[in-house]
Amino acid sequence: MADYVYGPGRTHLFVPGPVNIPDQVLRAMNRQNEDYRSPAIPAMTKILLEDVKKIFKTTTGTIFMIPTTGTGAWESALTNTLSPGDRIVSFLIGQFSLLWIDQQQRLGFNVDVVESEWGRGADLDVLEAKLRDDTAHTIKAIAIVHNETATGVTNDLTKVRKLLDTYRHPALLLVDGVSSICALDFRMDEWGVDVALTGSQKALSLPTGMGIVCAGPRAIEASKTATSRRVFFDWKDYLRTYNLGTYWPYTPSIQLLYGLRAALDLIFEEGLDNIIKRHNRLGTATRLAVQAWGLKNCTQKEEWFSDTVTAVVVPPYIDSNEIVKQAWKRYNLSLGLGLNKISGKVFRIGHLGNLNELQLLGCLSGVEMVLKDVGYPVKLGSGVGAAAAYLSNFTPFIPSRI
Amino acid sequence: MADYVYGPGRTHLFVPGPVNIPDQVLRAMNRQNEDYRSPAIPAMTKILLEDVKKIFKTTTGTIFMIPTTGTGAWESALTNTLSPGDRIVSFLIGQFSLLWIDQQQRLGFNVDVVESEWGRGADLDVLEAKLRDDTAHTIKAIAIVHNETATGVTNDLTKVRKLLDTYRHPALLLVDGVSSICALDFRMDEWGVDVALTGSQKALSLPTGMGIVCAGPRAIEASKTATSRRVFFDWKDYLRTYNLGTYWPYTPSIQLLYGLRAALDLIFEEGLDNIIKRHNRLGTATRLAVQAWGLKNCTQKEEWFSDTVTAVVVPPYIDSNEIVKQAWKRYNLSLGLGLNKISGKVFRIGHLGNLNELQLLGCLSGVEMVLKDVGYPVKLGSGVGAAAAYLSNFTPFIPSRI
Amino acid sequence: MADYVYGPGRTHLFVPGPVNIPDQVLRAMNRQNEDYRSPAIPAMTKILLEDVKKIFKTTTGTIFMIPTTGTGAWESALTNTLSPGDRIVSFLIGQFSLLWIDQQQRLGFNVDVVESEWGRGADLDVLEAKLRDDTAHTIKAIAIVHNETATGVTNDLTKVRKLLDTYRHPALLLVDGVSSICALDFRMDEWGVDVALTGSQKALSLPTGMGIVCAGPRAIEASKTATSRRVFFDWKDYLRTYNLGTYWPYTPSIQLLYGLRAALDLIFEEGLDNIIKRHNRLGTATRLAVQAWGLKNCTQKEEWFSDTVTAVVVPPYIDSNEIVKQAWKRYNLSLGLGLNKISGKVFRIGHLGNLNELQLLGCLSGVEMVLKDVGYPVKLGSGVGAAAAYLSNFTPFIPSRI
Amino acid sequence: MADYVYGPGRTHLFVPGPVNIPDQVLRAMNRQNEDYRSPAIPAMTKILLEDVKKIFKTTTGTIFMIPTTGTGAWESALTNTLSPGDRIVSFLIGQFSLLWIDQQQRLGFNVDVVESEWGRGADLDVLEAKLRDDTAHTIKAIAIVHNETATGVTNDLTKVRKLLDTYRHPALLLVDGVSSICALDFRMDEWGVDVALTGSQKALSLPTGMGIVCAGPRAIEASKTATSRRVFFDWKDYLRTYNLGTYWPYTPSIQLLYGLRAALDLIFEEGLDNIIKRHNRLGTATRLAVQAWGLKNCTQKEEWFSDTVTAVVVPPYIDSNEIVKQAWKRYNLSLGLGLNKISGKVFRIGHLGNLNELQLLGCLSGVEMVLKDVGYPVKLGSGVGAAAAYLSNFTPFIPSRI
Repeated sequence: MADYVYGPGRTHLFVPGPVNIPDQVLRAMNRQNEDYRSPAIPAMTKILLEDVKKIFKTTTGTIFMIPTTGTGAWESALTNTLSPGDRIVSFLIGQFSLLWIDQQQRLGFNVDVVESEWGRGADLDVLEAKLRDDTAHTIKAIAIVHNETATGVTNDLTKVRKLLDTYRHPALLLVDGVSSICALDFRMDEWGVDVALTGSQKALSLPTGMGIVCAGPRAIEASKTATSRRVFFDWKDYLRTYNLGTYWPYTPSIQLLYGLRAALDLIFEEGLDNIIKRHNRLGTATRLAVQAWGLKNCTQKEEWFSDTVTAVVVPPYIDSNEIVKQAWKRYNLSLGLGLNKISGKVFRIGHLGNLNELQLLGCLSGVEMVLKDVGYPVKLGSGVGAAAAYLSNFTPFIPSRI
Repeated sequence: MADYVYGPGRTHLFVPGPVNIPDQVLRAMNRQNEDYRSPAIPAMTKILLEDVKKIFKTTTGTIFMIPTTGTGAWESALTNTLSPGDRIVSFLIGQFSLLWIDQQQRLGFNVDVVESEWGRGADLDVLEAKLRDDTAHTIKAIAIVHNETATGVTNDLTKVRKLLDTYRHPALLLVDGVSSICALDFRMDEWGVDVALTGSQKALSLPTGMGIVCAGPRAIEASKTATSRRVFFDWKDYLRTYNLGTYWPYTPSIQLLYGLRAALDLIFEEGLDNIIKRHNRLGTATRLAVQAWGLKNCTQKEEWFSDTVTAVVVPPYIDSNEIVKQAWKRYNLSLGLGLNKISGKVFRIGHLGNLNELQLLGCLSGVEMVLKDVGYPVKLGSGVGAAAAYLSNFTPFIPSRI
Repeated sequence: MADYVYGPGRTHLFVPGPVNIPDQVLRAMNRQNEDYRSPAIPAMTKILLEDVKKIFKTTTGTIFMIPTTGTGAWESALTNTLSPGDRIVSFLIGQFSLLWIDQQQRLGFNVDVVESEWGRGADLDVLEAKLRDDTAHTIKAIAIVHNETATGVTNDLTKVRKLLDTYRHPALLLVDGVSSICALDFRMDEWGVDVALTGSQKALSLPTGMGIVCAGPRAIEASKTATSRRVFFDWKDYLRTYNLGTYWPYTPSIQLLYGLRAALDLIFEEGLDNIIKRHNRLGTATRLAVQAWGLKNCTQKEEWFSDTVTAVVVPPYIDSNEIVKQAWKRYNLSLGLGLNKISGKVFRIGHLGNLNELQLLGCLSGVEMVLKDVGYPVKLGSGVGAAAAYLSNFTPFIPSRI
Repeated sequence: MADYVYGPGRTHLFVPGPVNIPDQVLRAMNRQNEDYRSPAIPAMTKILLEDVKKIFKTTTGTIFMIPTTGTGAWESALTNTLSPGDRIVSFLIGQFSLLWIDQQQRLGFNVDVVESEWGRGADLDVLEAKLRDDTAHTIKAIAIVHNETATGVTNDLTKVRKLLDTYRHPALLLVDGVSSICALDFRMDEWGVDVALTGSQKALSLPTGMGIVCAGPRAIEASKTATSRRVFFDWKDYLRTYNLGTYWPYTPSIQLLYGLRAALDLIFEEGLDNIIKRHNRLGTATRLAVQAWGLKNCTQKEEWFSDTVTAVVVPPYIDSNEIVKQAWKRYNLSLGLGLNKISGKVFRIGHLGNLNELQLLGCLSGVEMVLKDVGYPVKLGSGVGAAAAYLSNFTPFIPSRI
């Protein structure tokens, strides 16, 4: 039953999450349950907590590895640092920031929604105005997605930091790094991010199930007085077990812990900066293909181009949902749908996680064929060729094989 | 690094969760991520939601498979059905009911804590008095663990139902079935349970990561007006996707879905009633061994004996933590610690999940050797022999091999 | 250590064996040893022996699943049917037929070697002459590779059969189907093949370790009098266990048996004829790419084109070994080397086994980039585009997803 | 289909091969095929060949890792060192020595069969007489099983060596170490063994599929002139690839190579001498259980007791096959059958490979229950208790957990 949609050969997984899991990680996770109260698991956890900090580029942060998804990680970030009624400035630039804002509102916060056209980044002019005006410091937090997965838009967090500094504003900076951390340049400490979070199934290239939240010192401080009701997501329970050396307030997934260990080993072997470069390489190649096809990137300006996902705008006479459907039905290729108000108008190519050049080129050639199938006049080979021209100039040798 | 506690041969996992995963389930989970928005995953989920009802013995319930642990499942049960300030009657009979009560209080409910000595079941006389007195129906819910994992005590839920019926009391009946469902007799519909919940890593014999909540019609109705703040755990978001046929408000673990499919296939092949009988057989055998060793069961009366976990009381001159430590260090045997106020006084043998007679007998012989190691005068072979005498009379042939 | 050649993303495996294993098969093989003398394994083996016949298109053949490689399967075919000194006609058309002939000679047979230029098929004119002249029937067997993996040449076995029939010659027809069976059209019974063989790691898409030999009635008859010394490869020991119902004269690989079961299930689900069509589609696409690059196929005539492997001739100023090396070092792409006398002159693209269109297109785009890297003036996108143009016209929908 | 003999819980595998595979090894083998001609596999093989020598305790031997079973390894040992007609002294002491002798005869050697009663070791007095008389050195080889798996008899190889030395006899010493190497004390160099061999599925605890042959310098020398026809098993082809640095004359199983790497890592972590001690501990415990049950060991004298397998003699009124059948059908326990002339008279407990104390005790308690089931008057707990009494005195702490 489970494989009733069987097609020969590999599935080409190019949704912007969950992403391809490396074989090494699959192997590490192929294991029995264990007693998480034995000495082994706390010892392992202790090292993991230290190592995970590296992917956030923080030394002062505290890591919480929560058995949940990104949505739960959001909730953890908000409820531990804020109290009902607190004012937040939040940017609506696509489906995922929309969902986060919805959560913020339902959790009882007072949200200043700053909306941009989908395909544009956060409107920082509005933020500047608000910060400038808020001399009373009623704004308790800025909540922003680093990378909006629905539109392929990357916000420049250094500018947000700069505005906060300029206006000496104490608002907490809460960052959704779900589709950025471990793929795009992200610097918790240097950029003064107070809470950042990601999910295991994104650039970490693990299965879904672990929401990773990193809280800076100001966020930890805020958690002591925040009155949002929380238990499952409460940092306090984690902090208590950290002090006890038991490390887990409730049962973790043994498999995800070993998987995370293997994932981090691969990340450190490749090097975080090389990973960021690889994502830039694959992102650039994808954008060159889109250009060669004569299609438009949903992202309106180069400054917002995302190296983890590209949302491609289709001509009005084509239904982008049809592209996604055909890709899956005919070529065993999974692409991302256009969500909400851009449903039918864009399809998305996820190019994040443990992925290499030829995988992407296979995907791009598949997209070309599907474009032809749905009636778009594409020259087969044009996008792949453009991408390959770039990649063949910039792809380094695999270090372990030189 | 990950295996730095390597010892030859199998690990004998006898904590009361997480439990042994069948090879068939491990194989089913040994897989890549997939796009959960493709037609395949919703189709699979739809069938899973129906099949999961069977392990709750319900036809009227609604299933929520939440990427969380038992603690999160608790929170889901409470926040969806109750509003801050609501009065709950809750029974404190061990560490896990204690933790649930702590959660209830932190979530802002008004909890009547009915405490029993650890080793005894819920005090239903007190419940009766409360129900009798509560003609105004201020009690909104009864929260009870079906099986207290810390002490090996099983509460008789039919009696709770009877009391509610006798006094025609409309309080919701919320049941923690974490260490009972799929192992002990549990009947959602017949017993009028309003919310029941379990976790994947218990009798379902999966990895940790899925909290399964089953809500009866009255609970669903209550969720429409309950004002507890919730987003991640909000049933509403699930119900919306059920109507849409997309089935997931956020990313599920693909691996756990396929694992659950495989686990249910095994459960249905063995037969839920045969599984319950097997647990009774293994539980009885364990208790006979304890008796043969001359040790006391923490559970004070036979009516509360648990078929999923046995807490064994050690003599005052022995530290039960030492037993757990030695078992792990010398025999690769994982036993459960005594928790909280019974720490050092009991150790626990978990005998739930996908387990058979010879595994248990291996464990019991290990316990015997450890008892001898820590200075308890046990006759080696006595407990195993007593257990085997029982098992050899009652173990049926494996149906597929007759 | 084991992963010291780690590179991010998938390895693109395009050698003509061992080939890509489907995830379903990997899962089925991810298992413990079992007692092969229990009732389970013989029952499973019995069904496997019947099912394997289907991939040979035989009803009269007898299957031997030998724990060995293709080389061992060759030896089994020869030593069970022939006696030292027996005359064989054998065709030398590439490295693998060369190795088989070497084996035939070392086993003491009297081999008429019929050589062709590498890149051409078996010289059947010479065969005809020999058969015509051999009125005394001194030729005991014709040994021929169906598909020469070193050059990508497929021989037409129906012509061989016709010659034998025309001259009413009783010589046994022994066929190496290592890189053909389960990928190319092969019909044991219809074509009067007496022994055919393959290896698990080729089109069956399993790991190496099982040599599969199919012996027709005349071969079984011959085995009764053949005096070549043999024990491990002796069919007699298998036939005895078939009669006993124990099925194994020595320990089989439990993992490969379950793997074979899973592989056959996938093969039957896709349909053998659809698999043959898929190989033809991928082979054609590859040849169109080669043509678009302006390179020559090592195979000299269309009648010999192989749908499982394409050997590409490089210009004299390029070392084909360098192409293979660069592909692995830079793009995580494994291509086949040129072997023996064509070393440095050709590289090979294996396109057999469980493979689909986008995998091949990814490979072809990789080859393009490597060609550019080594100094060949290729237009990037040209080959992929040509292949895609063909594939987009002929790739059917995945039946299970329509 | 594959799991149609499903029973809950683990299978207890106690046949003397194939044996339990450690999880670490299963994980290492859970992998895709790879190109064995890439630089990675030869590099890995080179180290493996060195490391495998350690389990033979040799520095002068040459290792051949052949894709075959023990039967093939036998054939490799014989055909590479001997010529048809050569005289061999061979000891018939059970089913496996019988099969080897059958092979020796079918391969055309002139075998002096020295038979012992099954349950006794090789008759070295006869060997002495033969060596003393053979002043012309017509005996070319002594072929002996180190451990006869059918009867649980271990031969003392040092005595054989001594006799050869005493009579300054140049016969090659060929040793079947299939159920000894990596479990019993074995010293290739010190004992002057010329060829020793084992199979992957025995004490190495891997799947079946790799026959490992170790040839000392005199055996390598002999292979240069031995005229037995051989190709697949010919050492020459391996030696050529060793010189070339390609290491494989034909396709190896990638999965078994990585599995062997993982198996050796575990072996070296535990320490070969600790492994030998563990086998002695488990063997002794098993024998104490047999004694406590009042049953006889098939092995007639203590000097021949085997630490890898115990053959237990049942009373005449019991059919030992029934014991094996019941164990499998009722307790998911796989025991070894009595073979050939001791069929129905003995059953076998394999206690080799990656196994620990509690696994064995679970098995022994299962055997007790089955003995009771088939009508033997056993006191339940007696054997397990006797074994546990011994084990609790001699089982060391797991070093990594102290």
